[in-house]
Amino acid sequence: MIALGREPGLEDLAERGRELHQFAAELYPICRSITGNGIRETLKKIQKHVPLEIHEVKSGTEVFDWEVPKEWNIRDAYIKDASGRRVVDFQEHTLHVLNYSLPIHTRLTLGELRQHLHTIPEHPDWIPYRTSYYKPDWGFCLTDKQLQALPEGEYEVSIDSTLEDGALSYGEYYLPGETGEEVLISVHACHPSLANDNLSGLAVATFLARLLTGKKLRYSYRFVFIPGTIGAITWLACNRDTAKHIRHGLVLTCIGDAGGFHYKKSRREDAEIDRVMAHVLRHSGEAAEILEFSPYGYDERQYCSPGFNLPVGCLMRSVWGTFPEYHTSADNLHFIQPEKLARSLHVCAEAVNVLENNRTYLNQSPFCEPQLGKRNLYRSTGGGSIHEEIHARLWVLNLSDGQHSLLDIAERSGLAFAVIDDARKVLCAGGLLQEAMATS
Amino acid sequence: MIALGREPGLEDLAERGRELHQFAAELYPICRSITGNGIRETLKKIQKHVPLEIHEVKSGTEVFDWEVPKEWNIRDAYIKDASGRRVVDFQEHTLHVLNYSLPIHTRLTLGELRQHLHTIPEHPDWIPYRTSYYKPDWGFCLTDKQLQALPEGEYEVSIDSTLEDGALSYGEYYLPGETGEEVLISVHACHPSLANDNLSGLAVATFLARLLTGKKLRYSYRFVFIPGTIGAITWLACNRDTAKHIRHGLVLTCIGDAGGFHYKKSRREDAEIDRVMAHVLRHSGEAAEILEFSPYGYDERQYCSPGFNLPVGCLMRSVWGTFPEYHTSADNLHFIQPEKLARSLHVCAEAVNVLENNRTYLNQSPFCEPQLGKRNLYRSTGGGSIHEEIHARLWVLNLSDGQHSLLDIAERSGLAFAVIDDARKVLCAGGLLQEAMATS
Amino acid sequence: MIALGREPGLEDLAERGRELHQFAAELYPICRSITGNGIRETLKKIQKHVPLEIHEVKSGTEVFDWEVPKEWNIRDAYIKDASGRRVVDFQEHTLHVLNYSLPIHTRLTLGELRQHLHTIPEHPDWIPYRTSYYKPDWGFCLTDKQLQALPEGEYEVSIDSTLEDGALSYGEYYLPGETGEEVLISVHACHPSLANDNLSGLAVATFLARLLTGKKLRYSYRFVFIPGTIGAITWLACNRDTAKHIRHGLVLTCIGDAGGFHYKKSRREDAEIDRVMAHVLRHSGEAAEILEFSPYGYDERQYCSPGFNLPVGCLMRSVWGTFPEYHTSADNLHFIQPEKLARSLHVCAEAVNVLENNRTYLNQSPFCEPQLGKRNLYRSTGGGSIHEEIHARLWVLNLSDGQHSLLDIAERSGLAFAVIDDARKVLCAGGLLQEAMATS
Repeated sequence: MIALGREPGLEDLAERGRELHQFAAELYPICRSITGNGIRETLKKIQKHVPLEIHEVKSGTEVFDWEVPKEWNIRDAYIKDASGRRVVDFQEHTLHVLNYSLPIHTRLTLGELRQHLHTIPEHPDWIPYRTSYYKPDWGFCLTDKQLQALPEGEYEVSIDSTLEDGALSYGEYYLPGETGEEVLISVHACHPSLANDNLSGLAVATFLARLLTGKKLRYSYRFVFIPGTIGAITWLACNRDTAKHIRHGLVLTCIGDAGGFHYKKSRREDAEIDRVMAHVLRHSGEAAEILEFSPYGYDERQYCSPGFNLPVGCLMRSVWGTFPEYHTSADNLHFIQPEKLARSLHVCAEAVNVLENNRTYLNQSPFCEPQLGKRNLYRSTGGGSIHEEIHARLWVLNLSDGQHSLLDIAERSGLAFAVIDDARKVLCAGGLLQEAMATS
Repeated sequence: MIALGREPGLEDLAERGRELHQFAAELYPICRSITGNGIRETLKKIQKHVPLEIHEVKSGTEVFDWEVPKEWNIRDAYIKDASGRRVVDFQEHTLHVLNYSLPIHTRLTLGELRQHLHTIPEHPDWIPYRTSYYKPDWGFCLTDKQLQALPEGEYEVSIDSTLEDGALSYGEYYLPGETGEEVLISVHACHPSLANDNLSGLAVATFLARLLTGKKLRYSYRFVFIPGTIGAITWLACNRDTAKHIRHGLVLTCIGDAGGFHYKKSRREDAEIDRVMAHVLRHSGEAAEILEFSPYGYDERQYCSPGFNLPVGCLMRSVWGTFPEYHTSADNLHFIQPEKLARSLHVCAEAVNVLENNRTYLNQSPFCEPQLGKRNLYRSTGGGSIHEEIHARLWVLNLSDGQHSLLDIAERSGLAFAVIDDARKVLCAGGLLQEAMATS
Repeated sequence: MIALGREPGLEDLAERGRELHQFAAELYPICRSITGNGIRETLKKIQKHVPLEIHEVKSGTEVFDWEVPKEWNIRDAYIKDASGRRVVDFQEHTLHVLNYSLPIHTRLTLGELRQHLHTIPEHPDWIPYRTSYYKPDWGFCLTDKQLQALPEGEYEVSIDSTLEDGALSYGEYYLPGETGEEVLISVHACHPSLANDNLSGLAVATFLARLLTGKKLRYSYRFVFIPGTIGAITWLACNRDTAKHIRHGLVLTCIGDAGGFHYKKSRREDAEIDRVMAHVLRHSGEAAEILEFSPYGYDERQYCSPGFNLPVGCLMRSVWGTFPEYHTSADNLHFIQPEKLARSLHVCAEAVNVLENNRTYLNQSPFCEPQLGKRNLYRSTGGGSIHEEIHARLWVLNLSDGQHSLLDIAERSGLAFAVIDDARKVLCAGGLLQEAMATS
């Protein structure tokens, strides 16, 4: 079991990694889109782990500058050659159809068909992922090898899809804490068979939710599983009042591959979550880079739009668009690794731990150092070197003037938050420290 | 034609470079000083391009801690050897006479003459530039080769100059804009036959003035062509009220040589002009360095004196005093290059363009991203990479909260101001952006 | 004589170095501790140089969270072998006894004795320095070679010490200045025969006090010679009102060895003393490093506790705990060097000089540059390069707007404070500058 604020053992990581990967594998075959039964089925599978509430927002609903689109569902799609053989088959891979393709059933020459075919010539074995949500269109995605092998001639083309009034579905799991101040964890759940983007995020968010369930928490936690862009916009439009309670937030995506961590800061750039993530990643033992905010990427775009300006950053391993497998069939279950999923979950749990415990304290003996020795909090024979835990106690005592949070102290001392927090516990128990009255 | 805010074509640069260099060449032979007919003749030549107003301030006028000096004029000067041959001849080069030399006509032995002769032994072919504005003196400047070739014996020495009550002349060209807030462009016009310092500045300022003439401008522009130091002091003393309207300013000097750009910041260090120049130079495609303010250099010394503390920086290519040709006859018409003059003019035009357009806007659809696609401002098929102009639109939308100017947005995004400004135009046209009410 | 604010000559350094080292040598043999006659004798030797007041604080006095301990005195201590020969002898080195050892006189086998013996196996010729102030104990410190040479058998062990009600002694020297604002110089005086830590600090503080005596001073100076930790706590407890007057302070320790300087900043990190020391060390001509504050080290721990938060930093050469000789008999009179002691004294004098003279001035001719030439403060012939003293005058004039202290000007200009201060004097004498009215 990965606990909050504790370094997990290797066996825990391995076991948790297996569970996470298994859950991603379970979700992999489903053909998700921004609406439809694929995302509904996905949300139901998450419900087996946490009591997710599923919301349906009708097609045509105005959501700020946008409108909830018609619902898209697909049952089958193929291209058959002259012999009647399926040369491109949706049943083999959900990426084979242009996502949101209109229904069609016709016969076309290869020349006519070509303008509806998408491949990646530089990776001839990979199927690209393409969508056309807002421009009515149809098409197929296939490997370039498949395309090159197609002889001239006539083909039967069929997409058995529907685009009709319906609803946009999203899932929400609310874990109430001591206060109504909220931490938002948001993942997009609209990509079909793509593992890193974003089954990794779905799996880690689900298990993080499970991990927090039943814990005594200071903040309330809101996990949202939504279609990308239109889903975040819809959620914000339907939850403007709720959004006001968000104090910290994370978008999770691409966190299962072998790459080091990347944390993209919120638009505010110095929000507490930005400092927390920088701290946790610095002490994570993995390569990690902090990226400046930019107004493109994932749903932090919406949370960080100027009307909301929420303190929401984005945690990734490899950055979207920078790895060749991105938005192709090569982003498959082999591309994500159990241990990496588990370590990503651990980093999220660590961040929660810092958020939960980052309070400000007052040294009760602020004039000179208190005598730690008589409380058995020091060592009794002078002359040697003192250790990290003693340093941490001195730092906490020295900076606990009501102006510095524990995270401030961790940053200034260079010590890990957990070490500082341990010192805090010892000093509180010894009567040398008390929580400062909140003033904000 | 070099337009504001547009990258000039190579032919435009070449043509404009020829014109600038030709104008410098026209001014080169004139013997200028801080007063007298040389600077008057120079100002009249500028009047052929822009309707400069010429001001005369009488000798003896008190200007702050200084006094306008007597007017110096010179007609001829020479040293003749025993055979009556002019061995140093003012008619050959204006630098041959110590600027502001008192009149003299006498006969001296070489030994007596020597203390009045100035050379540069380490550059034996160059004539130094020397002045003695405030200590009555006379002298000749010559190449060290000339000096070494002088035989012992008696010489006839003649300086046909006058130092009498008269006036200090300066030129001013005021281009009114929509507001009374002013941009100051200041160049010193007192150096005799020295090309980079400062015919380059005179030429670029003249052509910049011509370029802005007839344009619809937000700011008013004031070009001043003045003698260095005493001219700037005189101008400030005569125009204390005008100085209060200066919002941005540039001193232009040494901007025709082959070196990269140097911009010396104003005393304020973070004035808008300082940020504008840093931005424009960063995107200029040339090597560029930003220098901290220091209280010596050119007339920014006066504009940035603590009583005024105006936001005036100094644009140079090679920095005065750091190149061997500085203040010698080697700073001639070969030392300045047509293309470099044209590119300097372009950088100034760019800076004007940023100043003119650096406003603050309000996103009219601030809750989540507006749907750019339905306005044909995005692309309709997802999955690919988005381009600079789309990025620019997203940045402008995201940061247009009334707190960020377009320059702020350009800096934070890393995009060129022109790209950001194009996005601004498109978004304004699309109804997604409006200028924020000025509040300062 | 090392004067304030002047670079000392080599002969001055040599002479002063000899005096400092000689004083350290005089103090070296005394067995000091945090209480007792050793520190009293030390304070009396300082009294020969400056009229130190010696204070006695009774054992049992409550000082914040601590209590003044019983007084420890020692006359003799030894370990005798079976033949009656002293194999470990306190008369040979004060470090041989565990500081604050309880009295004992008994016979023990080597096996029983061993748990009371301290050595440094990795430096077999050095005696360690060990203390046990707060845990009743006894013991001996010896070289590892001595230990290895001890045969099995029975030993006579004697420590002729007393631990009884008495007092904690400290010395204080107060030099009144024009204002009641104080500069604190604090050194610990409790270590026995250890030269760098802290006879170097004792010697430099004593000679600095002598140097300042009789000078006309702006600040009042308070030199305290105290036992480490408990002494600083006692002093602060007895002088809470006095502490309120401390504007700047330095703890001096380990400043006689051959290492470069280290200055550890105060908890405030940007206190004037922090900036002063950084400036002085940058211009000291020696290697120097600025260290961030941390809540362990010397008595700055107490002065910088959150209830006081005094602007007190710590000046060292080699940092305590980082050199192998630290807290061993190898920190002897050979480990400290006369010239290094003298240069440390000079750095302290320089810091005092900056503190004394760091005022804010007003340019009396703030509009444009005043004409320095007519006051013989410039040079009369233009065209050459200007020198450091002229630069300094221009900087002082330019930034003397009532917002910048001389230290601000020194830092922004990159010039040494002494050069800036010289310019200030010249400009004040010339009527161009006046001290700004203090407003804080």
